[in-house]
Amino acid sequence: MQMYDIIMKKRNGQTLSKEEIYHFIDEYTRGNIPDYQVSALMMAIFFRGMDRQETVDLTMAMAHSGDVIDLSDIPGIKCDKHSTGGVGDKTTLSLIPMVVSCGCRVAKMSGRGLGHTGGTIDKLESFPGFSTSISEEQFKSQVRGIGVSVMGQTADLAPADKKLYALRDVTATVDNMSLIASSIMSKKLASGADAIVLDVKCGSGAFMKSLDDARGLARAMVDIGKGAGRRTMAVISDMDQPLGRAVGNAIEVREAIDTLMGKGPEDFTELCMQLGSRMLLMSDVCGSLDEARQVLKESISSGRALDTLAAFVKAQGGDDSYVYDPARLKIADRVTEIKAERDGYISHIECDEIGMVSLTLGGGRETKESDIDLSVGLILNKKVGDHVSAGDTIATIYASDPDKEKAAISRFAGTYLYSDDKPADRSIIIDTVD
Amino acid sequence: MQMYDIIMKKRNGQTLSKEEIYHFIDEYTRGNIPDYQVSALMMAIFFRGMDRQETVDLTMAMAHSGDVIDLSDIPGIKCDKHSTGGVGDKTTLSLIPMVVSCGCRVAKMSGRGLGHTGGTIDKLESFPGFSTSISEEQFKSQVRGIGVSVMGQTADLAPADKKLYALRDVTATVDNMSLIASSIMSKKLASGADAIVLDVKCGSGAFMKSLDDARGLARAMVDIGKGAGRRTMAVISDMDQPLGRAVGNAIEVREAIDTLMGKGPEDFTELCMQLGSRMLLMSDVCGSLDEARQVLKESISSGRALDTLAAFVKAQGGDDSYVYDPARLKIADRVTEIKAERDGYISHIECDEIGMVSLTLGGGRETKESDIDLSVGLILNKKVGDHVSAGDTIATIYASDPDKEKAAISRFAGTYLYSDDKPADRSIIIDTVD
Repeated sequence: MQMYDIIMKKRNGQTLSKEEIYHFIDEYTRGNIPDYQVSALMMAIFFRGMDRQETVDLTMAMAHSGDVIDLSDIPGIKCDKHSTGGVGDKTTLSLIPMVVSCGCRVAKMSGRGLGHTGGTIDKLESFPGFSTSISEEQFKSQVRGIGVSVMGQTADLAPADKKLYALRDVTATVDNMSLIASSIMSKKLASGADAIVLDVKCGSGAFMKSLDDARGLARAMVDIGKGAGRRTMAVISDMDQPLGRAVGNAIEVREAIDTLMGKGPEDFTELCMQLGSRMLLMSDVCGSLDEARQVLKESISSGRALDTLAAFVKAQGGDDSYVYDPARLKIADRVTEIKAERDGYISHIECDEIGMVSLTLGGGRETKESDIDLSVGLILNKKVGDHVSAGDTIATIYASDPDKEKAAISRFAGTYLYSDDKPADRSIIIDTVD
Repeated sequence: MQMYDIIMKKRNGQTLSKEEIYHFIDEYTRGNIPDYQVSALMMAIFFRGMDRQETVDLTMAMAHSGDVIDLSDIPGIKCDKHSTGGVGDKTTLSLIPMVVSCGCRVAKMSGRGLGHTGGTIDKLESFPGFSTSISEEQFKSQVRGIGVSVMGQTADLAPADKKLYALRDVTATVDNMSLIASSIMSKKLASGADAIVLDVKCGSGAFMKSLDDARGLARAMVDIGKGAGRRTMAVISDMDQPLGRAVGNAIEVREAIDTLMGKGPEDFTELCMQLGSRMLLMSDVCGSLDEARQVLKESISSGRALDTLAAFVKAQGGDDSYVYDPARLKIADRVTEIKAERDGYISHIECDEIGMVSLTLGGGRETKESDIDLSVGLILNKKVGDHVSAGDTIATIYASDPDKEKAAISRFAGTYLYSDDKPADRSIIIDTVD
């Protein structure tokens, strides 16, 4: 089997066989196929696309290119959640304790963030002592015990995807739905979950700007998951403005804890309920979405979800006292309140730019090697649809460094748009795909 | 200027600017752009194409990526001819002496063959002592003196094309008309000719199998030549069966000499007349095609063309006595006559397979490093349209080695097809493009 023939076949619009896809991925991972042939194939795929079976085969080949976590010796259904990423997305921090406290089992591989704010691991490290550098043995025994564990992604999880993504990133071949979907799902499948709930973000702050694209990506990922024999569904959620009010790291953890205490922002709480009820349904914990929603509400009102977060933090070496006293989580002390320029309704928030404000403060990584300042961030006191008078505080910036503070304030300018008429209400959940 | 943006622009169907094309070619030649980005761009060009100006810019950028031969200090119009290659194509050997003896000046860079039979240089080396490893100074002074010189392609002629072609060859991005045309024309432009006559072969034995493709390539090359300010035209000629009767190296030289003596095969002689009359017209030697054809006929009947070949061979170190006594050119002595299987008309000859018979005998190169046996080859005693009786000799194979002879005979089987009805006459010239 020759890589040349595989490129030619796809270039001419033919369907690649499972054997051809595995050959290409296996030999590329081993370094036996040069980058220049692979980038030509990626560009051919950009133009010709891949059908459902090809996409499943590519994903499975990448999932099996390195370590595959076997969770079958843990009883019950292991459920995972994945978000395509957005600004202020601290969902894992609230959602996982909620569903785990209801009987769901979550064995999660997570990554660090690049750009915008930090990733889930960065945020969890706001708890002093917390570590995700744990052995696979500890990872699994913790899921067996308290029902949840989060492990940093090991170097050997879907190495083919890592190599392929790095190449696509420099050859203008990233934005193809099948390739995006297979990249995400290869890591999910290698992580070993039986059921996967996908949160596909849609809007100006998301990778998928249009609803059509978000639906296409959700469809592709659900098809892959099902094709690989996993229970899979996707929620398309709004990312036209940041999720919740907090953007940063420790500041998002505080908001996540507030949510577990029943006093979280409405949009964020609703997203957790929506995703959580689907996780409970897919894990066979509940029989209907209505029942699941009730169970989740009770997990908050009873304090059980908060206790689960504390147990989880403690199990991974973190100081769980912070869970019950989130004010102790260190927030930067240079505080700037941003005022409304005029009377009116907030009609739009430039979501990506708000992410850049947090990055400017030092809350995100510009390159993989950057250090991250967990204490900086911002609170959006007003969100889309709120009415303000000129001079009202619309946002509060928390900075450590005066120069970065200045740059962040300057970057913030123009992120809020106003209108005289109240904008139409938006629902946090736009659609579901299963 | 970033290569990433150039790939993205072409991927999205936009037109590349002259600056972008020069940047890509210059930096790629210098080794500053990796192969994997270039192969992605080539695949994007395969799908999106290039317009006339982009194709001219790419060709000029490649032509200027290395040495550019300046022939301006040689008086008069320097004319070149290029064939896209086929089986039995010994045109240069007869055509050049014909036109030079009429007053045309030809300063030609030529290459060695790969596959099929040898290239022009290989064939010329059938004359003992003949060498194309000459200095640029000798090259030019010879054109000034006897009107013709053939030089082996130096390493520095359009190095960008060499690098790009090698990459396209392994990434399934060869067959795009603009890229094929720019590859050929970049070397022609760098060689410095003022006027270029292109012989685009069309048919089962040519790179361009269909007339549409041949016309497309001819159009693209003529556009490039004119866009670069050179007089350029193309003849589309038939390559559905081998040209002439001889296929090999020394054996083709013999046929070329026969043609200069006025006893060449009809199709081959006619092609030389057609191409030659256009070279004379473009060089302002003649005012009309009819006049040019008369002049060329006279160059043969008077022996002037043959004398010019002798002068040319002598000038480049070869033994010119062979020109007047071509029987001295060494032909292999293992002779096998292939007989007709049945009565009827020859309806088709598998042209590519005939080329492979010559390669099998050792007359062509399988890889760039292969040695070539100049003495082997075959004579096609019968061609398409000829009537034969079972047992008539249709072809004669000349071999040096018994194993290769056996393999060649076996390979020959099935190359000739027969019919009861006389096939329609075919003209050697199918079309012209200017």
